[in-house]
Amino acid sequence: MSDPNRLRQQLDFMREIDKVKSVFRRNYLFDGSRLENDAEHSWHLAVMAVLFLEHADPPEVDLLRVIKMVLIHDLVEIDAGDTYAYDTEALVDQTERENRAADRIFGMLPADQRQEFRALWEEFDARHTPDARYAAALDRLQPMMHNYFTDGRVWIQNGITAEQVIARCSPIANGSPVLWEYAEGLIRDAVARGYLKG
Amino acid sequence: MSDPNRLRQQLDFMREIDKVKSVFRRNYLFDGSRLENDAEHSWHLAVMAVLFLEHADPPEVDLLRVIKMVLIHDLVEIDAGDTYAYDTEALVDQTERENRAADRIFGMLPADQRQEFRALWEEFDARHTPDARYAAALDRLQPMMHNYFTDGRVWIQNGITAEQVIARCSPIANGSPVLWEYAEGLIRDAVARGYLKG
Repeated sequence: MSDPNRLRQQLDFMREIDKVKSVFRRNYLFDGSRLENDAEHSWHLAVMAVLFLEHADPPEVDLLRVIKMVLIHDLVEIDAGDTYAYDTEALVDQTERENRAADRIFGMLPADQRQEFRALWEEFDARHTPDARYAAALDRLQPMMHNYFTDGRVWIQNGITAEQVIARCSPIANGSPVLWEYAEGLIRDAVARGYLKG
Repeated sequence: MSDPNRLRQQLDFMREIDKVKSVFRRNYLFDGSRLENDAEHSWHLAVMAVLFLEHADPPEVDLLRVIKMVLIHDLVEIDAGDTYAYDTEALVDQTERENRAADRIFGMLPADQRQEFRALWEEFDARHTPDARYAAALDRLQPMMHNYFTDGRVWIQNGITAEQVIARCSPIANGSPVLWEYAEGLIRDAVARGYLKG
């Protein structure tokens, strides 16, 4: 197991992914002090996966696989950048940009780990399995909460509508109906408070 | 399972821990652009736990438990702050400050989760189990690499010696001899380059 070339690839990957700490997102921290980055977001989702496990539905999710997915799901943004969920122009070539990024970034790993990480990332993206659906629910809920609890600042700046947020966040229902019920309440309230256009 | 009070406690905890994104550490990102925060550090350790699993020794570690430990190990710093590893004065009351913080922060959770999180944090801190030793190895290696690969900037600023870094980082050997061998090489090289006092 002490193949020095293998260890070198793993160490190089560990250093490369540090860059995701400098990919900033379209939501503020809860205290409103600054935008959040992808590493912080991924950490938050991993803790949420543990915290909200009992609300996963269907309940037969493999927590370790879910956590692995959320930990690595945004690594492609090191090359592809953060694509704003409501930027329809950028969304057009997002898949192509992210696939190229996955080739390069996961390509740094030894073959077995490259395959594992790539497969987890593709599964997350496809949202067809219970694990991926629960992971996606967390990934949609977390920034939505950040936007709501910072007085809708980013939504207001971008003129976002309730319809857009519902379309973006409805996959929460496929991973956790309980969390979706909570999210729906926030969206209704966000309209009432003028954070979102009705 | 849909106890609204329980869900409320979990949601409040999820919002509270956002504050760990504003607790800054004594190492720069690999690109040297700024100091790293605890959320980013915890995310990095969780990915490393997956990446370096084959180097854990003893090998019988429970990866899910290790990841949970590294995800939450620095939450107490929301109240207690980051204690610099080489600040002997601050280290004196660190345990007391961190225990108080653990009471408050984990105390926000429903009883079963409070107990689980608290026990994982205490196990991590004690470094007596294989899981905790592997987790600690990652926690010592990661900032050491960041300091080395940013030309020893923080070490030089604080006049740190090789002996201090060896004392701080030698627990890596108890979780992963392979990673400790790598770390020892970096420390030797750091002395040769003048990043650390010999």
